[in-house]
Amino acid sequence: MKEIPGGVVAAKGFQAAGIRVGVKSSPVPDGNQPIAPVPFGGAGKKDLALICSDRVCSAAGMFTTNQVKAAPVYVTKDHIADGTVWGIIANSGNANACAPNSRIHAEEMCDAIAEELGLSPADFAVCSTGVIGQELNVGAILSGIPGLAASLSDDPQASDNAARAIMTTDTVKKEIAVELELGGKTVRLGGIAKGSGMIHPNMGTMLSFVTCDAAITPHMLSEIVHEVVPRTFNRVTVDGDTSTNDTFLVLANGAAGNPLIEWKNEDYAALKDALMYICTDLARKMAADGEGASRLITCTVHGSENESKAERLSRSVVGSSLLKAAMFGADANWGRVLCAMGYSGANFDPEQVDVTFRSVAGEVPVCKLGSALDFDEDFAKKVLSQDEVVIDVKLYEGDAEATCWGCDLTYEYVKINGDYRS
Amino acid sequence: MKEIPGGVVAAKGFQAAGIRVGVKSSPVPDGNQPIAPVPFGGAGKKDLALICSDRVCSAAGMFTTNQVKAAPVYVTKDHIADGTVWGIIANSGNANACAPNSRIHAEEMCDAIAEELGLSPADFAVCSTGVIGQELNVGAILSGIPGLAASLSDDPQASDNAARAIMTTDTVKKEIAVELELGGKTVRLGGIAKGSGMIHPNMGTMLSFVTCDAAITPHMLSEIVHEVVPRTFNRVTVDGDTSTNDTFLVLANGAAGNPLIEWKNEDYAALKDALMYICTDLARKMAADGEGASRLITCTVHGSENESKAERLSRSVVGSSLLKAAMFGADANWGRVLCAMGYSGANFDPEQVDVTFRSVAGEVPVCKLGSALDFDEDFAKKVLSQDEVVIDVKLYEGDAEATCWGCDLTYEYVKINGDYRS
Repeated sequence: MKEIPGGVVAAKGFQAAGIRVGVKSSPVPDGNQPIAPVPFGGAGKKDLALICSDRVCSAAGMFTTNQVKAAPVYVTKDHIADGTVWGIIANSGNANACAPNSRIHAEEMCDAIAEELGLSPADFAVCSTGVIGQELNVGAILSGIPGLAASLSDDPQASDNAARAIMTTDTVKKEIAVELELGGKTVRLGGIAKGSGMIHPNMGTMLSFVTCDAAITPHMLSEIVHEVVPRTFNRVTVDGDTSTNDTFLVLANGAAGNPLIEWKNEDYAALKDALMYICTDLARKMAADGEGASRLITCTVHGSENESKAERLSRSVVGSSLLKAAMFGADANWGRVLCAMGYSGANFDPEQVDVTFRSVAGEVPVCKLGSALDFDEDFAKKVLSQDEVVIDVKLYEGDAEATCWGCDLTYEYVKINGDYRS
Repeated sequence: MKEIPGGVVAAKGFQAAGIRVGVKSSPVPDGNQPIAPVPFGGAGKKDLALICSDRVCSAAGMFTTNQVKAAPVYVTKDHIADGTVWGIIANSGNANACAPNSRIHAEEMCDAIAEELGLSPADFAVCSTGVIGQELNVGAILSGIPGLAASLSDDPQASDNAARAIMTTDTVKKEIAVELELGGKTVRLGGIAKGSGMIHPNMGTMLSFVTCDAAITPHMLSEIVHEVVPRTFNRVTVDGDTSTNDTFLVLANGAAGNPLIEWKNEDYAALKDALMYICTDLARKMAADGEGASRLITCTVHGSENESKAERLSRSVVGSSLLKAAMFGADANWGRVLCAMGYSGANFDPEQVDVTFRSVAGEVPVCKLGSALDFDEDFAKKVLSQDEVVIDVKLYEGDAEATCWGCDLTYEYVKINGDYRS
């Protein structure tokens, strides 16, 4: 398996597009509100994306567990209930949630793109991200649909456009593709994602779409998704707030011509590994680009008696506000690591825990068997000042492990989420 | 029942003291570290407190649920296992957790105060709050014990001193007392508390001690505590980090001469109401003085089918980083209220929810039956800019309700917890 360019159009038979239709507000030329317009993306920022295959795809997804779900989540669930779609249409700038006519507008988006491309509405998944509680400007979207369809392309720029059209406060686009051999055929997967970004007056949402030209049944694809997503996207936390719109979708159109994957054979395992690679990469990019984040925080718990305990402990560490603030200050507050493990709900012996901070600058063991180690504060500061900091936690129970990803808590997070009007 | 002055010495037979022994560091006269010393309290700040009765007390408590517990928590649990103590000794500046000899040092504190006062070590509860992972300077404490005992007094200033001696980054002392009639006798209760305050390099801890001169059995006192604490202190969240040292203790010495409360009669109910009043007051003060907080956020969920669901929903709202940041910005982001309810784990119908923001400046209904209401943004900003903001959530399921308290998320929180060394 190797990385290749092309994002979601790397896989055969897939095209993409991303354009601006005006759902995202334009900046207000008002000197008193210098920050407000920025999260919207400002004038000219793309806000409508399309990914479409030249044939029907096996489709599988996972969705927000929030009880308050945006209308497009319900519509997409209905449309992939038969295990197939042809494509995905997605807008940013408005979450189409808790707002008038949200279900109707989500269906209108599918109706319009289906009519434009000569397909059926149920052939499309639909996603939205942005403001909650304001009616979607569906008119802008509908009038943009012909232009969107017309700009479909398999040029790598088209994937770039789609990746940008789903961004909200993301500061970098998130895109990756890989290539592997399956049954003597070259199979490609590509993905784009957006992270937890805040838009006035609401909402951080995770969206990620992966295309794949492997031949695989919807059931097997769903099995892979349910193995991969809990170990990748579900191990990212930026602020603990699960959005109403979170959606992960993978579409596999079979254009690679590999033998159909219809049971859990070697090819299944290889494709799962490839999707794990794609999703790990996108999940890490999402954590690193968390709102206001200045660095990626990775916590791996080793030596656990089982993976779910390791995950629970690791998630509690990267989710701790105190730990996140300490990481912003590059402060080796290992006590906060133990404290967060302690309230995670997982059982462990606090006197059988080692903690080490590491980064490209080196590593600093700070706690051995639950008790403090002496360390050089200046060196620790250097280690913790890098773009990625890893917190290695070692238990002495077994050999299971799990990794979760988060980011530091910064002034900028508070600013983005609270202060943009002042 | 009425409020009276005197804090923990308002109840008959109780004395208190608070002095400085040097556990809290003094400020370093280094122009490059202007912030560091402040959270410690600086030179001259009190760091050792004592509360003591003139007779044995019924005692009951509740403690941190963190699996990583500080040594004094274990020692105190042992000492109140028989339902009685005479007093409480507590230091700030060091949590005596995850550090060498922590259990020994906690026991030494009890030994020393017991010897000084001619009592037994098991007659004392012991508490610590401050740095995790550094050995307690127990020598400073032990040499301060004679002076601590000598300054015991029932003057209201003594309660003030004790309240200040347990403060860390708290910006105001937290103290209250009330008086009521029980069986024809005047009964008094008084309490002090410290909130979630950060000390280098770690730790926010909640400590609260209540004295009471009612006659009540240890078992009945414990029953009251277990009814009151889950509805008061356990409904406060500042940053979701449960400390290793959290302790609530109530001591009742019977000096009021009321008929002994030994079952759940009218007097039991009246005393429970009084303790609820005390703990609600201290819990609200703790939330309002959360690290970096600029305002108290109160969320009441009404119309729930049961109290535990109402509590879970309310806690999720006041614990949401996004909502907390919005409250800092005085931004009426009601979508974040629904979003936080949605991931709380409690079942409810998102289309059967009303949300209103209110404060002394007025009230702003923002959501009716799950959908947006029009409101005046300027007026909403005014309502949300007050010292206390109440979020009223109405369901249409039943008549149970619950209130939780939190605070906004500010630059100052990030600064206190991350930036003090830079």
